[in-house]
Amino acid sequence: MDSPPPRIATADDAAAIGRLLHDFNTEFDTPSPGAAVLGERLVRLLSGPSMFAILVGEPALAVALVSVRPNVWYEGNVGLLDELYVVPERRNRGIGSAILQLLHEHSAVSRIDAIEINIDEGDVDARRFYERHGYSSIEPDTGESALYYFRELVSPPPAGTSS
Amino acid sequence: MDSPPPRIATADDAAAIGRLLHDFNTEFDTPSPGAAVLGERLVRLLSGPSMFAILVGEPALAVALVSVRPNVWYEGNVGLLDELYVVPERRNRGIGSAILQLLHEHSAVSRIDAIEINIDEGDVDARRFYERHGYSSIEPDTGESALYYFRELVSPPPAGTSS
Repeated sequence: MDSPPPRIATADDAAAIGRLLHDFNTEFDTPSPGAAVLGERLVRLLSGPSMFAILVGEPALAVALVSVRPNVWYEGNVGLLDELYVVPERRNRGIGSAILQLLHEHSAVSRIDAIEINIDEGDVDARRFYERHGYSSIEPDTGESALYYFRELVSPPPAGTSS
Repeated sequence: MDSPPPRIATADDAAAIGRLLHDFNTEFDTPSPGAAVLGERLVRLLSGPSMFAILVGEPALAVALVSVRPNVWYEGNVGLLDELYVVPERRNRGIGSAILQLLHEHSAVSRIDAIEINIDEGDVDARRFYERHGYSSIEPDTGESALYYFRELVSPPPAGTSS
């Protein structure tokens, strides 16, 4: 495998991550506030205790973004894998799996006791990928899948904004 | 309606909230580390910026627990409604709706831009309740429901632990 190893990003990587996340949303026709706004936010967020990122390559060719919150049922924290993106020309080479491996190793030393992901029901490739890596949508208490519900309290970002 | 109004809890309420959450899990045969452990954790968690609770009654008869994390797509934070519990003898009196109303008002002044909840697919009563209050499981980008996936990195709490 000729891909460089994943590493934990620093606030110095904020601009590169902002560009990748903007490209991600552009590829999937999802609104984005633009690479510059994302990069500025990430300088602040990656400097705090509640978000970290995993980056691959220089220039960056893949990123994972993880937000961290406490949970009363665990002694440690819970991480939510908000985004995982590999640029199109580098897919299907094990980069996603290498990122998840570092995510699990880093979580073990960072007092993160569980990792969560919200995945579209019809995204069978993603579901299979995460299931292969030990993730499940089945609540052990009930034997049922759990659905992710949300309600926005502010307007979403404007559609089609470019960087 | 004879129920007292919901209020934002303080760390002084930690023990009462721990007891309610333990009763919640006991009622639904879910493992719990016990009311005492939960109460101790909540003293710490409710003193920080990443968790708050809404409480009803004295003695407490209903609670909502919300964890807060940043999200790169929003200028503010995102809140996850981890738990919402009303004691059995006070259900179906609008207490849940009053709690959600305070949750939305409090979020607006606390820079929380979206609220999330994970709900079992088969829990049609809960799904209907939250849909009535503006929540949706449909991702606007895809028109599909999103599933909540997770992977624990530590062992879950032991089953059947009592306080």
